[in-house]
Amino acid sequence: MRKRLTGGPAPLEEVAGNGLLHRRALLGGGIAFAGAMTTGAAASSAAAEPLTNPPWTNMPGIVTPVMQTPSRFEKNVVRILSNPKGEARTQHARAPLQMLDGTITPNPLHFTILHSGIPDIDPAQHRLIVHGMVKRTLEFTVEDLLRYPMVTRKHFVECGGNSAAMFSNVPLQATVQQLHGLVSCAEWTGVPLSVILDEAGVDPKAVWMMAEGADDLLVARSVPLKKGYEDALIAFYQNGERLMPGNGYPMRLLLPGFEGNMNIKFLRRLYIIDQPAMTFYETRNYSPLLPDGKAYRFYFVNEVKSFITKPSFGMSLKAPGYYEISGIAYSGTGTITKVLVSADGGQSWGEAAVEGPAVPKAFTRFRMPWRWNGQPVTITSRAWDDSGAVQPLRADFVKLRGETKKPVKSPYAFANQHYNSLTAWGIDAKGEIKHVYA
Amino acid sequence: MRKRLTGGPAPLEEVAGNGLLHRRALLGGGIAFAGAMTTGAAASSAAAEPLTNPPWTNMPGIVTPVMQTPSRFEKNVVRILSNPKGEARTQHARAPLQMLDGTITPNPLHFTILHSGIPDIDPAQHRLIVHGMVKRTLEFTVEDLLRYPMVTRKHFVECGGNSAAMFSNVPLQATVQQLHGLVSCAEWTGVPLSVILDEAGVDPKAVWMMAEGADDLLVARSVPLKKGYEDALIAFYQNGERLMPGNGYPMRLLLPGFEGNMNIKFLRRLYIIDQPAMTFYETRNYSPLLPDGKAYRFYFVNEVKSFITKPSFGMSLKAPGYYEISGIAYSGTGTITKVLVSADGGQSWGEAAVEGPAVPKAFTRFRMPWRWNGQPVTITSRAWDDSGAVQPLRADFVKLRGETKKPVKSPYAFANQHYNSLTAWGIDAKGEIKHVYA
Repeated sequence: MRKRLTGGPAPLEEVAGNGLLHRRALLGGGIAFAGAMTTGAAASSAAAEPLTNPPWTNMPGIVTPVMQTPSRFEKNVVRILSNPKGEARTQHARAPLQMLDGTITPNPLHFTILHSGIPDIDPAQHRLIVHGMVKRTLEFTVEDLLRYPMVTRKHFVECGGNSAAMFSNVPLQATVQQLHGLVSCAEWTGVPLSVILDEAGVDPKAVWMMAEGADDLLVARSVPLKKGYEDALIAFYQNGERLMPGNGYPMRLLLPGFEGNMNIKFLRRLYIIDQPAMTFYETRNYSPLLPDGKAYRFYFVNEVKSFITKPSFGMSLKAPGYYEISGIAYSGTGTITKVLVSADGGQSWGEAAVEGPAVPKAFTRFRMPWRWNGQPVTITSRAWDDSGAVQPLRADFVKLRGETKKPVKSPYAFANQHYNSLTAWGIDAKGEIKHVYA
Repeated sequence: MRKRLTGGPAPLEEVAGNGLLHRRALLGGGIAFAGAMTTGAAASSAAAEPLTNPPWTNMPGIVTPVMQTPSRFEKNVVRILSNPKGEARTQHARAPLQMLDGTITPNPLHFTILHSGIPDIDPAQHRLIVHGMVKRTLEFTVEDLLRYPMVTRKHFVECGGNSAAMFSNVPLQATVQQLHGLVSCAEWTGVPLSVILDEAGVDPKAVWMMAEGADDLLVARSVPLKKGYEDALIAFYQNGERLMPGNGYPMRLLLPGFEGNMNIKFLRRLYIIDQPAMTFYETRNYSPLLPDGKAYRFYFVNEVKSFITKPSFGMSLKAPGYYEISGIAYSGTGTITKVLVSADGGQSWGEAAVEGPAVPKAFTRFRMPWRWNGQPVTITSRAWDDSGAVQPLRADFVKLRGETKKPVKSPYAFANQHYNSLTAWGIDAKGEIKHVYA
């Protein structure tokens, strides 16, 4: 009854240096893993009496609540806050990506950035207005828009400033959550923006729209109208339920693949115009710097990127043997088609298994079977998408975008924006993991 | 810049009686909706001063928490409990499906059934044992298994007793949550069971495995070994994070498409055997009754099913005009390929848009554009899957499986199991919605 692999390399054949195995090993052939495990601690013969009866098998359990929460044994799986007391500055909450698996970020853990806290919006009072260069100025209640045709799409959202510490000239010793936790992925449901724009009757001379939120600062960004007709949504649901307050309740703009800040939360206005509004958040706050001191104007897209979440800094390998290397890949320019993994710092590469069906502009989980022989290794990943884009090597990225002159001291310090080069983890003979530049 | 539909029926062409529109209307052509909306209240001209400034635009917001929770204005979006005080009987928690959209059930709202409460399991003490007709008895810690190769799959889980009130001879007036809330869908990540079975070395004469949980009652079910080699998982993650306690933390068996109770939670034992164990939960509790008083033996699969969640009982239509009819389809025997919707009680049918990519044994969202003319109508849906299975009409279903002689009084009363026929909603001229048999 066992499934057997036929054809191709043997499941445990090495495809690249330092123990990377062929990804077909993940598809079945479990008996092979038993062999791979013999040097590890994963399986052991059970005692003569195999069944113990811990206390919870001898007492009634906890009463079912109306809403479930995680086990008390998972209390460390929370977001890290940059401003836990809510001082009068930006509040970042980073997602614990190295403790998650799959492709969905649960709503309680989805990253958020609020520049002046979370507005406590009564949806019955909230309005969306579409005005400017339109035939008909439109005003919608939430209830109005919930009657419109909806679509459901899985997409990541990433802050333009995610991974800022990767611009440091010396690798900062920090977890995936600290380095890359300003990105998350959810299944969003909402009204295609094209439906609303067509209903308003946009002037053919219009090129931009300014989107504005109903928060204290009225955060606003200019968005090319073209994006509005492509794949933009007015989103109401996040992983099935109405939006979290920190993610824009009762409605937000969703611009798949465009930096998080443009996906205006608490959306209250779309102002159709023929030139960009040059708001604070596009001219000052979200302008990636270049080595010559100038800045990019309108750097919207989160480009192709990947990083290994398991194993990663903060974990350790207990003993040589079989492990799964696993991570996240995503791209604002398309669908992930290929992820390569190296265990020798980029000298040789093997192709990882990519979980399907991969969809555009969404987290794609990659997995690579690996047998660690107990020697020091450096693991890293590199992703490709169907637009032909490839994640740049660090040397090439630094040449173009620069790095700091002094080491960045904190993952929360501002360094620069739109880092999408590699992340590498150095594992020593004791199994301890450091952040390294490979 | 507007997208225009070309070819095929015009977007607002009726494809079936009582205002069902061609599903291509959902793909674009927003200007057409403006026309469809003119009899509704969805859009209105804004006043000369379009922008109001509600209080939350004039004060700093709430401080960011480590874990997000829904807005206080969504406090009704919770599970309904059958046994809120945790008396010494089964506890059901039903998912509020009519208030959700998309295909994912958020973890706090995923349905649960516990026969003796939720065990508070320390994962460091939990063990999984594989024994019986195997070459090697194996004992695993949670940490051991987390080193194994994982896969990520989106699947529904449904209680065999979901929709029991649909066996009533008179339609019970109840919400989707009350009628059908014992089903949910999540992205699960875990170790393919085939890997573990191969590692144990299963005796070729073995045909079944008894799976047992570490709860107070040691809930146990017999599962065909064949399923273990097909698509069964030992799941550790649910929508990205570790399993909810009520869904089986720290690990559960996941048998895609098989009734919920077989997906043993708190999995502690797989006993490999050559005949079924005939446990309480397969011989007494989960045995669907037949009209002649006999019962099915081993009715595992949740067959193809669909129901409309919006609009549905408990909602009302405010005025004639455009609405979206939306619902959920799923099948334990394959991938949803087609959903038909009727607005005239089954006399004529139009094909709904099915959100993609549809995946096997998972919620698939269907959507049907609809223009209500204000007259009484009866809406219903019917689903097909790629195995050729089709959701049975009620008359055919009742002929085979029977119905009660007296009306069922409560959605929580036991009536029978494995209902997968249609659900219909009757809408009167005032827009009020009743549960009807069409």
